[in-house]
Amino acid sequence: MSILVVGSVALDSVETPFGKIENALGGSATYFSVAASFFYNNIYLVGVVGTDFPKEHVDFLISQGIDLDGLEQIEDGKTFRWGGSYINDLNAAETHFTDLNVFSNFQPKLPKSYQNSPYVFLANINPELQINVLRQMTTPKLVVCDTMNLWIDISQPMLLETLKEVDILILNDAEARQLTGEDNLTRAGKKILTFGPTRVIIKKGEHGAISLTESTFFAAPAYPLTNVVDPTGAGDSFAGGFMGSLATLNSFSEQSIRRSIINGTVIASFNVEDFSLDRQRTLTPQEIGERFRQLEEIVRF
Amino acid sequence: MSILVVGSVALDSVETPFGKIENALGGSATYFSVAASFFYNNIYLVGVVGTDFPKEHVDFLISQGIDLDGLEQIEDGKTFRWGGSYINDLNAAETHFTDLNVFSNFQPKLPKSYQNSPYVFLANINPELQINVLRQMTTPKLVVCDTMNLWIDISQPMLLETLKEVDILILNDAEARQLTGEDNLTRAGKKILTFGPTRVIIKKGEHGAISLTESTFFAAPAYPLTNVVDPTGAGDSFAGGFMGSLATLNSFSEQSIRRSIINGTVIASFNVEDFSLDRQRTLTPQEIGERFRQLEEIVRF
Repeated sequence: MSILVVGSVALDSVETPFGKIENALGGSATYFSVAASFFYNNIYLVGVVGTDFPKEHVDFLISQGIDLDGLEQIEDGKTFRWGGSYINDLNAAETHFTDLNVFSNFQPKLPKSYQNSPYVFLANINPELQINVLRQMTTPKLVVCDTMNLWIDISQPMLLETLKEVDILILNDAEARQLTGEDNLTRAGKKILTFGPTRVIIKKGEHGAISLTESTFFAAPAYPLTNVVDPTGAGDSFAGGFMGSLATLNSFSEQSIRRSIINGTVIASFNVEDFSLDRQRTLTPQEIGERFRQLEEIVRF
Repeated sequence: MSILVVGSVALDSVETPFGKIENALGGSATYFSVAASFFYNNIYLVGVVGTDFPKEHVDFLISQGIDLDGLEQIEDGKTFRWGGSYINDLNAAETHFTDLNVFSNFQPKLPKSYQNSPYVFLANINPELQINVLRQMTTPKLVVCDTMNLWIDISQPMLLETLKEVDILILNDAEARQLTGEDNLTRAGKKILTFGPTRVIIKKGEHGAISLTESTFFAAPAYPLTNVVDPTGAGDSFAGGFMGSLATLNSFSEQSIRRSIINGTVIASFNVEDFSLDRQRTLTPQEIGERFRQLEEIVRF
């Protein structure tokens, strides 16, 4: 049993009102797999880096128990770099630069041992690559997918093709509105269910998340933070905590899904308390359990 | 035992993508008292209207069991009229006109029988009038207060004076940010607690509400609506359902407060399903109970 994630591994330069970092560990597959590793042991990462990717980052990922056989290193290539800031609004990054580098020719190749992973997370990459990954797999039990405004803009037909093969779509409120043309999020969620996924999870930042199926509706609270230092990676940390928890519970019951959404919320809440993945380096299961219990208390009535 | 509310009674002309109404029943005290009347019997309304205020509206309020001894009718005066639309954004009204009429000289005078009400709701009126109301009362058990951007703009010192005598402040997210200068809502809420209230409830529209004290944090879900017809009066309906429920429970325990916030959420959710107070005219206790149970299910994990 394993969770496969395909996405970016990056070096980020980020500025927020609380400071700045340069060339720090980042990328959707990175945030996802580290988050998932707090709940589950077999995380397979598929991505690409250049020879400039620091060995300390590789060591950190391995120390979290993440399998890097699928992390391709391109000779003489440079790792994907992203630079951005959240100066006026912690909910929206302003991109300063995007140097795709080796990521621009990324063609995910799944090692043989990865191809029968029951759990798959297609992080925010070109929908064409997302489908390509699914073509390399035997029959996954659960396919979860993320996307972004860029693909909704320039690759909507291919995205809709991908969604036909996806069980759960995770996206944020703005993306849900953009994808469906519906302002009302409940309507947007219901419309997405007609595209293929049996469940949609809409992330709303400081307002928590909602999860819809044809017959269920779950409203998850956000963890009430007063010190958001760097929001980068919150969405992928959420998805990673969610799938790691779900794989451990090994059940798709509504209750398992809901408890896993809360675990995703918890990891995302820790992630934003420091730059890059720095908070995760010292994060303990006790701290995770404590926030889970606090969230139980926060919604009880 | 009684709930006293002081606020506006108005005739509203509203346009939304779903239709329009002219000179329909409205006003903060109206929405509040009708909402409260679904949970509690003794609602005392203090407000002012002109001779043009239709008798059918008086009859409706009386049929809901609302005491109108405090509703002054000014000879030859015209009732407060408001006109607005929600065309592009159901969360923000665009005001077309505000004819204060008799409301411009409103000086709340409490009938003798109102002065020892244990529960007081100071709807969104000039903070000077809010204080004036409190001066006329013996010792209320619970003072709940609403406000708006206008008073935060032009009357902040007086508003802060009022807040010293308020137990619970109810306001929306934009107002909480404006009043405190804090973008983070948890920080904003905590800052408001230093102004006097022991509890603050921040309404977030489609994202529900949060309620903070020094030692507690409650996240209430919104009821997932797909057909919001007219948002006018949602905030006052929320406050009315909240206080009506609280007065019936006759307890200020955290659990009573939380269950009352959910009852407020339920009434507000019905209110926005039709124009003016039309939905409330046919609303039944069974329908209220059913949505309460749905909200329990929506947050369970």
